Amino acid sequence: MTATPHILITNVTLLTDPDTPLIASQWILCKGTTIHSFGSMDTVPVCHGALLLDGTDKLLMPGLINGHNHCAMTLFRGLADDLELGEWLNEHIFPAEAANVTPAMVYWCTKLAAAEMILSGTTTVADGYFHEEEAARALLESGMRAIPAHGIVDFPAPGVPDPTNNIAAVETFLTHWQGKSDRITPAVFAHSPYTCSPGTLQQAKKLATKYQVPFFIHIAESKYEQQMLMDPQGTSPIRHLAALKLLDADTVLIHCVWLDDEDRKIIQKNNPGVVVCPQSHFKLASGIAKTSEMDNMGIRIGLGTDGGASNNSLDLFREMDILAKSQKARTLDATAMPARRVLAAATETNAHILGLPQLGKIAPGFKADLILLDMKRPHLQPAYNSAFLVYSTSGADVETVIIDGKLVLQERKLLSFDLEECMTKVRKLSRPLGVL
Amino acid sequence: MTATPHILITNVTLLTDPDTPLIASQWILCKGTTIHSFGSMDTVPVCHGALLLDGTDKLLMPGLINGHNHCAMTLFRGLADDLELGEWLNEHIFPAEAANVTPAMVYWCTKLAAAEMILSGTTTVADGYFHEEEAARALLESGMRAIPAHGIVDFPAPGVPDPTNNIAAVETFLTHWQGKSDRITPAVFAHSPYTCSPGTLQQAKKLATKYQVPFFIHIAESKYEQQMLMDPQGTSPIRHLAALKLLDADTVLIHCVWLDDEDRKIIQKNNPGVVVCPQSHFKLASGIAKTSEMDNMGIRIGLGTDGGASNNSLDLFREMDILAKSQKARTLDATAMPARRVLAAATETNAHILGLPQLGKIAPGFKADLILLDMKRPHLQPAYNSAFLVYSTSGADVETVIIDGKLVLQERKLLSFDLEECMTKVRKLSRPLGVL
Repeated sequence: MTATPHILITNVTLLTDPDTPLIASQWILCKGTTIHSFGSMDTVPVCHGALLLDGTDKLLMPGLINGHNHCAMTLFRGLADDLELGEWLNEHIFPAEAANVTPAMVYWCTKLAAAEMILSGTTTVADGYFHEEEAARALLESGMRAIPAHGIVDFPAPGVPDPTNNIAAVETFLTHWQGKSDRITPAVFAHSPYTCSPGTLQQAKKLATKYQVPFFIHIAESKYEQQMLMDPQGTSPIRHLAALKLLDADTVLIHCVWLDDEDRKIIQKNNPGVVVCPQSHFKLASGIAKTSEMDNMGIRIGLGTDGGASNNSLDLFREMDILAKSQKARTLDATAMPARRVLAAATETNAHILGLPQLGKIAPGFKADLILLDMKRPHLQPAYNSAFLVYSTSGADVETVIIDGKLVLQERKLLSFDLEECMTKVRKLSRPLGVL
Repeated sequence: MTATPHILITNVTLLTDPDTPLIASQWILCKGTTIHSFGSMDTVPVCHGALLLDGTDKLLMPGLINGHNHCAMTLFRGLADDLELGEWLNEHIFPAEAANVTPAMVYWCTKLAAAEMILSGTTTVADGYFHEEEAARALLESGMRAIPAHGIVDFPAPGVPDPTNNIAAVETFLTHWQGKSDRITPAVFAHSPYTCSPGTLQQAKKLATKYQVPFFIHIAESKYEQQMLMDPQGTSPIRHLAALKLLDADTVLIHCVWLDDEDRKIIQKNNPGVVVCPQSHFKLASGIAKTSEMDNMGIRIGLGTDGGASNNSLDLFREMDILAKSQKARTLDATAMPARRVLAAATETNAHILGLPQLGKIAPGFKADLILLDMKRPHLQPAYNSAFLVYSTSGADVETVIIDGKLVLQERKLLSFDLEECMTKVRKLSRPLGVL
């Protein structure tokens, strides 16, 4: 990772935000960790000592934000696919986790995920897994911006063998990480209403409020979940959370596939963020969330990949494409979830949902989290407007990545850590699982 | 394009076909245009003068087969997205075609499509567009294997201004191209039952039968089509074709989204191939084909991307992923359309549907149409089995492509034609349309 106080990119095409048309032939200047200014090539500023990058035939846009991941699950990617959810979890993923989740596994497999994300243009990730202190350390070292959220469940978990300590463990995590780095925002992840009691959920939310950090929860992912829900008296998962007063603008609802009209109205009124993970919803046969309806209601829609084992790709460009297309196929309306709304979900809306409003947009004063794409590739020609970022681009088109004003990827070479070492470590960890 | 009589790849992981587990540490020998033999690294053959490729950390598999494309439509990719089908066609695509389709446009934009396909691991494409002789020429020069199919409609079209000549024009095309190159199989494309009269359809099929070439037709793509269909007496598009005796093993039905149970039984009985284009079906809001049910019935399912304007990517890896996932989401059954069935649709089944059974598999005597993927990338680690090819791989992971025993792509450098020249020509063609 090269620390550079100033970076000047010239002759570049800019996507400042999803609602503004692309502007060609621009310069942009980053000073320290933020975007300072940009303008037309007619008047390029003089910046002695700045790192100069040539943006010819390239597009610069805000780094993508992944609103939901279990980074360390890269270890289990492809271990078991095409299986019914119960069988997948109970016969494959849970036993694999019981046997393989260790602090070292979380550290190295989170780093592998970070490499994959940086190489596909993601600059910020919201994570949640076991041994989250190791995930936070890996993400900090990777050069990414991250919201590592410590998990809470009411049963023994790796790192928290005694569930009566689950709230205390999160508080220790929050106090350790808060203020440690501008790039790391520790947070709270109550796993779900079927693994946390009402009391646990309320304590977890109280803790998040105390530390002013996001409160995440998996909710309404599958039919299966509805059947498991503790309250059998017609309460939906969303109404359950609403009754516990867990829904506010600092709560992030992950999934939201199985909602009814009343649930959506409750979300609209209380303003929690909703992060959908369409590829995971498809692959696990959870269903297709009514994302376009929620977006039209003004509910804040963010995008996430979910963990590598249920997707199986952390490329948010691929995720954006499927989000747009799935809504059209579901509604039989080709205007549903247009490209600009999908771009918003992966950039500025996700930034707001995650409590980081200084991200997701190219504007003076915003964080210098930027990605540079090579447009001179056959599959991106010709380019008429920004929709090609959703429908034609893949993460492999990302050439250079800047996070917090620092070069993290240059010409697809990862600068922030030793990728070779990381892949070797993960390979070793994957051997007992039968890697090729 | 380097002509090499023999190619020897060593130390490679092989996917011979979708039903066979991956085998590590193999060598494979291609002689002339075909696969000669393969085996374990314990006993590598001596091949003086053969081109040697190191397959360490790489996977070799059959080249992907794209069962449906309108290659030249790359010119219109991204020109208009997120629009209702009628508006998209009538206000954007048809006027753009009327103003821009020329022989030169078809030649250069087909070549651009070929570059994109080769770079994403597709070695064979079935194409259909206007001025198909130029498409055939471009595909031949690109180094790809192709089935260029001459279109037939009952109204004036670019290249065939007088529709009374439409059958004669196809016959001229077939006689010109048949036997010209082992890589080119000319064919017949009757556009659809709503643009061709019953008489035209029957003459077109007769011609295909006479020349023993595939007969393609778009069918049951949208609700819109059903409303337009000429026979108002309860006839479905499929029953209309069956009544005209157009359905046999040499007919290729493109789309098949809007079928009923009777339609599927008719297809099952008559054995035409079905090529689905899930990304296009999604993006144009046509719907989700019942592909997994058809596959379970023994109907031959192939995969295509459709043209670049309705997808907007010609990467069959992305298409495979969406085919698998869309069936799970539609049926709420995660076991639907497993990875191996999707791989078959893009390789050996497509080969059979297109009448080229010597393709789509690694076996002695099969055509040397092969792609080599770099597995040492963070998003492909760890790899436990071949499902990663569907759920994690993208076309950008393809490193080397061999078609008909010749190197066409090496380390992502296109060897068969001048890509820079092609992109410049397409850029010029796209200027009147308002390219960036």
